[in-house]
Amino acid sequence: MPTSTCSDASAPSFASEAQVSRTVGVDVGGTKMLAVAVDDAGLVDRERRVPTPETSSDLIDAFVALVDAQRADGPVDALGVGVPGLVDREGCLAMAPNLPNVRNLQVKTLLEERLGLPVQVDNDATCAAWGERELGAAKGSDDVIIVTLGTGIGGGLVLDGHLYRGAHGFAGEVGHIKVDPAGPPCPCGGRGCWERYASGSALGRFGREAGEGGRATRVVELAGGDFHDVRGEHVGAAAREGDPEARELMDRFAWWVAQGLGNLADAFDPDTFVIGGGMLESVDLFLDRTRKVFSELVLAGPERPPVDIVPAVLGERAGAIGAALVARDLLAS
Amino acid sequence: MPTSTCSDASAPSFASEAQVSRTVGVDVGGTKMLAVAVDDAGLVDRERRVPTPETSSDLIDAFVALVDAQRADGPVDALGVGVPGLVDREGCLAMAPNLPNVRNLQVKTLLEERLGLPVQVDNDATCAAWGERELGAAKGSDDVIIVTLGTGIGGGLVLDGHLYRGAHGFAGEVGHIKVDPAGPPCPCGGRGCWERYASGSALGRFGREAGEGGRATRVVELAGGDFHDVRGEHVGAAAREGDPEARELMDRFAWWVAQGLGNLADAFDPDTFVIGGGMLESVDLFLDRTRKVFSELVLAGPERPPVDIVPAVLGERAGAIGAALVARDLLAS
Repeated sequence: MPTSTCSDASAPSFASEAQVSRTVGVDVGGTKMLAVAVDDAGLVDRERRVPTPETSSDLIDAFVALVDAQRADGPVDALGVGVPGLVDREGCLAMAPNLPNVRNLQVKTLLEERLGLPVQVDNDATCAAWGERELGAAKGSDDVIIVTLGTGIGGGLVLDGHLYRGAHGFAGEVGHIKVDPAGPPCPCGGRGCWERYASGSALGRFGREAGEGGRATRVVELAGGDFHDVRGEHVGAAAREGDPEARELMDRFAWWVAQGLGNLADAFDPDTFVIGGGMLESVDLFLDRTRKVFSELVLAGPERPPVDIVPAVLGERAGAIGAALVARDLLAS
Repeated sequence: MPTSTCSDASAPSFASEAQVSRTVGVDVGGTKMLAVAVDDAGLVDRERRVPTPETSSDLIDAFVALVDAQRADGPVDALGVGVPGLVDREGCLAMAPNLPNVRNLQVKTLLEERLGLPVQVDNDATCAAWGERELGAAKGSDDVIIVTLGTGIGGGLVLDGHLYRGAHGFAGEVGHIKVDPAGPPCPCGGRGCWERYASGSALGRFGREAGEGGRATRVVELAGGDFHDVRGEHVGAAAREGDPEARELMDRFAWWVAQGLGNLADAFDPDTFVIGGGMLESVDLFLDRTRKVFSELVLAGPERPPVDIVPAVLGERAGAIGAALVARDLLAS
């Protein structure tokens, strides 16, 4: 596939449907693509998944195959796509850290041509935010921030009841807010990004540093005995056993989650934060402390109505469900 | 005036006018209140100012007097108010750092009763953002963040073409985003807030620290010879003379402004930043460097369309003009 830039997008138009019946959402992860269908009642239909291809043309083919499979079950009126990277307002994927061979891919234009359907392309966390707001943990809330704590930190924003994408489609990259000028370097090229402190990777780093210093012996043991091999899940497992050193590392992690949520609350003033991503499986080990520290750190805590900090409930399907729901808006407009 | 809480607000209703003719905006500063009137053509009418009273009841009386004075020139259809503090969505001023005797003041309710007009109350930077977006430096931009660099840092947000106030009216407190866990304490109770690095007060601190270390001799000289007396304006004056040590301090300040704007761009993805506040008079001494560092720090700088960083143009009237324009929306709805 020839290299293009995000400014090459064209905009075909589609006859709008009088009644929405069924939209498909596809969430693209670093390793797998997950497709769901949503009908008028908001219910999730047949779910399908395939491995994420490495090249742009294979990626487009995989989308087409997933939608064709959903079409075998019934008509599809629109497609929503969530991708793990920077998507511009014309549905072009500028770059995705976990898809190194994909750059400036005109996802919307190419899929509309291949499928003959209206297509909306968004960042995956943006889709997840909409899914959780419409059918999940933040149902009924108008000002919601989802933060997905995984390898890095993703963010999706619902403001005044609408998805907020930013001027260029790049809003919500909250993991790269710099919280420490002396902090460790980040793959983004910056230094001291929040995701260096409050992601699963960060928890692993806390564990490795403790192991290197001769501490966190149980954590290192769970990692097989070499501190270099410690990952976030080893810290989580030791903390779950009640290991005090692992608990301390988890408390440090909880503090940094709260610090970042406090920053976001000062700027955005949401009513609800939804915590998603891989760290969700350890959320019971840090959420109470995060809530407590948050209330101490946020500006004017005593004057501020309570802000909910809740775990995501749609799990790994949040992005695909949200994408399918976002696609409905293409038909309504 | 008896103490009340922000939850006591009641909501009188007003017959909406068929045609808007004239709205008044009042901006409340720590030392003065400024009133302007805006007519259908968006023009500023007679301007009036009075010292800011210290107590709640005197403050309400001063609003009434300013509006009465504007009424002497012609009918007033609505009032917009900008106040330097946290305002909830019902127009209650929860607290304002520079008005220590004012807490939980039902500004909207009290003024509507006294004036018989619809009243909108917002944070002053929120009003300034709307003024600059409608008639100033960000005219025509749909995603605008104004940052007012003064004693602290205020923020106002225009997102998707609308003022964004947050779930509770507290959005835009960007000066309290924590950027350094080892940073100096902030009057807000936090530590390492952005406004400790990128406000006029911060520039003064940089100067005092340099002076204490025996450096920045010209800056200290301009402050009268005692490094304790150095303020931001002394650094600015020495930098304007070309003093290399003051230029270095100004470069450090510019870096921190850029760091914070980069954080906001990662989260909000605006097309335009407007720089306002007292540091505006030195903007030529730091803006070029801020722009350069911003483009290096913001996530995916090469992939991102250029983000404008521009000085405010409405000056000290931005808040009052914005408040008057915001008040129009009360009539349109």
